[in-house]
Amino acid sequence: MTKDVVPDIVIGRLPRYLQCMNLMAKEGLHTVSSGVLAARLGTTAAQIRKDLSYFGGFGKQGSGYPIYHLIEALQEILNLDRIWQVAVVGAGDLGRALARYKGFPRRGIEIKLLFDIEPNFIGTKVGAVTIQHVDYLEEEIQYHGIKIGVLAVPAEIAQKIADRMVKAGIRGILNYAPVSLILPETVHEERIDPVLQLQTMMYYLGDD
Amino acid sequence: MTKDVVPDIVIGRLPRYLQCMNLMAKEGLHTVSSGVLAARLGTTAAQIRKDLSYFGGFGKQGSGYPIYHLIEALQEILNLDRIWQVAVVGAGDLGRALARYKGFPRRGIEIKLLFDIEPNFIGTKVGAVTIQHVDYLEEEIQYHGIKIGVLAVPAEIAQKIADRMVKAGIRGILNYAPVSLILPETVHEERIDPVLQLQTMMYYLGDD
Repeated sequence: MTKDVVPDIVIGRLPRYLQCMNLMAKEGLHTVSSGVLAARLGTTAAQIRKDLSYFGGFGKQGSGYPIYHLIEALQEILNLDRIWQVAVVGAGDLGRALARYKGFPRRGIEIKLLFDIEPNFIGTKVGAVTIQHVDYLEEEIQYHGIKIGVLAVPAEIAQKIADRMVKAGIRGILNYAPVSLILPETVHEERIDPVLQLQTMMYYLGDD
Repeated sequence: MTKDVVPDIVIGRLPRYLQCMNLMAKEGLHTVSSGVLAARLGTTAAQIRKDLSYFGGFGKQGSGYPIYHLIEALQEILNLDRIWQVAVVGAGDLGRALARYKGFPRRGIEIKLLFDIEPNFIGTKVGAVTIQHVDYLEEEIQYHGIKIGVLAVPAEIAQKIADRMVKAGIRGILNYAPVSLILPETVHEERIDPVLQLQTMMYYLGDD
């Protein structure tokens, strides 16, 4: 099947299904119904069945999904059957927290490069990574063949760093800077901005 | 108009519109067309017009949106016309980065409380906040009448802390723990998990 028939919003939900299945496997479960899965994820059974149907049938009617089989299938669909190396730009509080985050290596993500411009930072280690000057960004990304970049820089310079990442071969950017990037269509952007999510929440909390 | 007629997905996009408009105002712009706004946000003009139409007409046909008027309206819709106090549980790398993040006070968010269980942390300051023992969570949240909590704790204890937050009066939880929470319907959850967003990206990058 061609990938572009699956809506982005469905792809965005698959990692959550996988995360929940992994937790269930740890709990010793072997099969799970779409209803139970839906309750755990705060969604509906119909949604889960429809999302998974894009990738063929995983469960027999009435018998639930075989958890281990579904975990393997989701890992393959999401290309998690390998280690993904990542380059982080910005070694402030956030960049450092990411470089030290144990949830990454545990799930196949290796922070391989960490860049900054602060002279006192260059050459020092954060977790297993040595901070390099951002002047070496292109050279290092190309040398390691890294496809994923993380922007942990101020909004003012985010677009400029993103442009340099893209020229160096980055194809996916996780953007923590509070600004929308303008990127070629071939580059995938995911944004994380806690302020936007808190503001969404405030809409619902305002009238209490 | 009643709030529940506006789909959640539309509400989730409003903070991005506001962020973009604020940037445009800084750049000295006074009006903007839905087309230009769409290009900056990587969406379509039709989507923006449809989203904003839930809240009445903001632009006259052909003359674009008046930026300052739209900023004010969006701030009012999202209840940003006040300071929102927030309680953070977990004073590890992430909790500390949040407590020090300058983007919060700048946008009306005050990290008022910070909790942990680590004896060496208790009583020390991070930015303007003093870390308190999590035993005081209920008392402090109630005393300050705080409605928003941030979970920056390991997955294993996230649900337990969330339950305590809800009992203390928290109505919105920004959840950084890599686990889905089970919450009453009256409590709004937003999740931030960089691994899930990186995994979504890997789907698109896998076949390069």
